[in-house]
This record gives sequence, structure tokens and C-alpha cells, in this order.
Amino acid sequence: MAESRVDDSDVNDEPHTLDAFHRGSFHLVQPASRGHRAGMDAMMLAACVPSSFGGHIADLGAGSGAAGLAAISRCMQAHVTLIENSDAMARFARLTIAHEANTRIHGRAELLVADVTLTGKARLAAGLADNGFDYVLMNPPFNAAVDRASPDALRRAAHVMDDDLFERWLRTAAAIVRPRGGLGLIARPQSLPEILSAMEGRFGNAQIMPVLPRPSENAIRIIVRAVLGSRAPLSLVPPLILHGDTGEALSERADAICNGKASLFGD
Amino acid sequence: MAESRVDDSDVNDEPHTLDAFHRGSFHLVQPASRGHRAGMDAMMLAACVPSSFGGHIADLGAGSGAAGLAAISRCMQAHVTLIENSDAMARFARLTIAHEANTRIHGRAELLVADVTLTGKARLAAGLADNGFDYVLMNPPFNAAVDRASPDALRRAAHVMDDDLFERWLRTAAAIVRPRGGLGLIARPQSLPEILSAMEGRFGNAQIMPVLPRPSENAIRIIVRAVLGSRAPLSLVPPLILHGDTGEALSERADAICNGKASLFGD
Repeated sequence: MAESRVDDSDVNDEPHTLDAFHRGSFHLVQPASRGHRAGMDAMMLAACVPSSFGGHIADLGAGSGAAGLAAISRCMQAHVTLIENSDAMARFARLTIAHEANTRIHGRAELLVADVTLTGKARLAAGLADNGFDYVLMNPPFNAAVDRASPDALRRAAHVMDDDLFERWLRTAAAIVRPRGGLGLIARPQSLPEILSAMEGRFGNAQIMPVLPRPSENAIRIIVRAVLGSRAPLSLVPPLILHGDTGEALSERADAICNGKASLFGD
Repeated sequence: MAESRVDDSDVNDEPHTLDAFHRGSFHLVQPASRGHRAGMDAMMLAACVPSSFGGHIADLGAGSGAAGLAAISRCMQAHVTLIENSDAMARFARLTIAHEANTRIHGRAELLVADVTLTGKARLAAGLADNGFDYVLMNPPFNAAVDRASPDALRRAAHVMDDDLFERWLRTAAAIVRPRGGLGLIARPQSLPEILSAMEGRFGNAQIMPVLPRPSENAIRIIVRAVLGSRAPLSLVPPLILHGDTGEALSERADAICNGKASLFGD
């Protein structure tokens, strides 16, 4: 999680911040006020990837790169391609990858400006080759009703929920990941029917982890892992609980996950 | 849960037991060795029903009546129709309803021998009227692969899983429950995709509760509640955890639920 935020406005003519993640292991250049700012969702998503993973990750809708970079910050043999369609956010991703504070991930991260929802030849032409990745991470945009009212075009682009959003994103994920490659996604619990429907016939061996703010509160997120082409049944794993019954401190497990000290599924 | 088991063979010429549930509040006449014997699944399913509920419950595939009778044993204003297709199990349900040890539920429980998967006029002719119930409970048969090998026809009938089982059971549930009526079901986590697909366009406002054997173990069951005709989004509620990290004792909450002292969803 972000621990420091300094003005770094010589890097770019747009107001932005440089935020430390994983206790300073890497940093994100992010828009100061506009657009989607990365946080705990991205850190939890990154923690889907097994710590021993050493392949090539695609981070779909990467924003400034939080999830993908958090994954390779923990998995030191892994590479990531950050895939982002917004020119404005891609600019921040580019600055992030090249930033002098990010030597830990230098040479292991690249940017591809592309629309995740392209299909067929257009998807190939955009640089998204079939079977080109070992793992796909995604944190698809949501919060439709709330954020459609937002006057901020960047934030809107990051949060608008389309009716067939998961179908379109998972179609691309299934195309670009190799057979038996991995999927990790984070979403709201209410998207579960749509997610499971879009996974059908593509991804199996799904593991669903509810994320509860506190032990007695309903899930605010679900984290889903799955394997391309597997026919193994779904399982529902114990929840990640972010806080205790009272207080604002992160639980020990949530803190380890958000700071790159542990994977979510213990592998 | 069953606390005593006595031989009661004068009631019936078939070997059977009389088992106390809810600390003796009601009893089940069950086959001694053949067929499905009721236990914790039925008690958890019954606990879906709010304690203030006073309407008419349909228990689909009731067996000897465990879930439906547990619900009306806790909800003293409620009625139940036990719906069972197996003549052999229906015989036990009939003995259970009439048993002298069951004065607590006398006059509030009836049996209907009918196939839950009938449709249209055949369903009406079998006694399953449209909009005839306020709440539907179901514990559909499962464990296909394991129990298809069983030589025991009764057990096979209770456990065979058909590919479109939830579609057929939920179609009937949606037909026989009134608008805004309730659904409660218990199933294995791996059936979640099929359940959510079959609920679509019928039941909404789903609440999903994972049942974990222990805090760090995967769910072995899911309990799903929903409302006919609701368009409210799905929620994922905190898990029911049956035991502590060690030992065989039920957790305080699981014990209360299995003994009719609390509802599952706190209403």
C-alpha cells in the first residue's frame, strides 16, 4: 500500500504523485486527482499469482500498472505486459515502468496500449497474440451507476460497467493465455453470476475467495482464480478478512498480502 | 441433531429408527440403513427460514421430513408440505408426521407424494399449485459419481445428480412459490454456476453463505437464500464455521443452528 506520496511534477506536466507500494519495493506514478488511483484491490489481485511463478503475466486494463507490477515485485523471475487502452493512463504506466525508483522491476515490465475487448484479427493486430501469456490478471471497471454521474472522464472510463463486460474481458483472457495458463480477477460479489457464466467452457478449477471488511460483514470483493481448459470443479476458499471486529488496522494476513509478503492462496 | 436412536420396529415392518432432533423437539422415523438419513445439511437448510416466519413452506424432496419439520419446529406459526417422490421415503415421512412424539408439529405438516421435476399441467395435477407456497426449501440430490455405484436404490435416488437438476428444481420452485416468496437451498460449492444460472430471471436478492468445516478449510456446502422476482444483487455473507481449528465439537453458532435455537441469517 502507498506509504509515501511526494510531488514529482518535473516528470510530467500533469499533476501526479509518486506512491510507494510493498513498503517501497516499487512505486507508481499516478494522476494526482483524476482517473482511477490504485490501492488495495490491485494489491489483492496481484497476490493471486503463486510466489514461485516465473512466466509472463498480462495485466488487462492495467491503469498505471499497480497489479502487474506488484506481482513481479514479489515474483522476481516473472515478466509483465501492462495492457491499457486509455492514452492518459498509459502515459502514467510508461512513466512508472521507467522511473528511477523502480529498479526492482526494470527490464521485466512493458506497456501495450490496446483495447482489451477487441476480437479476432483486430486483437492480434493490436499486439495481443493467442496463447501469448502464462497468466492473466484483471480488475475490470465497475461501479456503473455511481460513477456514470461523475464528470471526470478518466474515472468514468475506469469504472463504467457494461452488461457483458466479463464476457468480453474473459473471452480475451481465454484467447491470450496458454492452455493450462492462469487467470486471476477481482470483482464485486454481485458480478459472480456474470463471471461464472463467462468462465463456462473456458476456465475451470475456479477458486473463489470472499474479501470481508470485518469478520461479521458481507463480502465487498471476490477474488477468483482459474485455469484455462481445466474441467475441475469450483471451490470456495476461506475468506480474506481485512480488519478485526473493531479498529482500522489491517489484519496480519491482509497486511502481508497488501505488502507483497504473501500470496493469497498460499502457493 | 439426532441425540437418541431407539428401535421402534412396531411402527413399521421395515427396520427403522426414531431419531430426536432439536434436542427432542421433534423426531424422525428413518430407514435404519437404507436410503438417505437426515443430518446437519437438513438442519442448516431449515435454519434459512426467518424465525418470525408464519407462512406455508414447501420442502422439495423432503425425504422423511427433516428440513421442513425442523423449520416448523422453530417457527411455531408456520406450516409445511413435505414433497417426496419415493414411495419408500414417503412412508417414513407419513409415520414421522403422525408419530406420537411429534405433538409439537401436529396439524402443521402434511405429505404430498409428487415428482418435483414435473412441469405444466402434470405438475398441477400432482398437487403442486402455482403460487401455492410462501417459502420453498430444497436439498437436491447430489454425489452422482460416488453413489451411482451404490447397490442401494433408495440411496441412489436421493443422491443422483442430473446435469440440469438445479434448472428443473428451481423451475418448479419459481412456479409454486408466490411473488416475493422465499427460496432456501443447500448444495455443494461446485454447483454454484448451475444454481446461479437456474436462478437467473426467477430469483434475486441472493444471499450465499459458505459452510466451512474449520476456519482454514474450503467450503463443503453453500446455503443460498433468494426472493422470487427480486432484482436486487447477490451478496456473499460471512461463512458458517462448523468446528474450531481442532477438535470435533460444534462451534457455538453451529450448535445453535443445528438445534433450532437460531436462524442462519439472523432474521
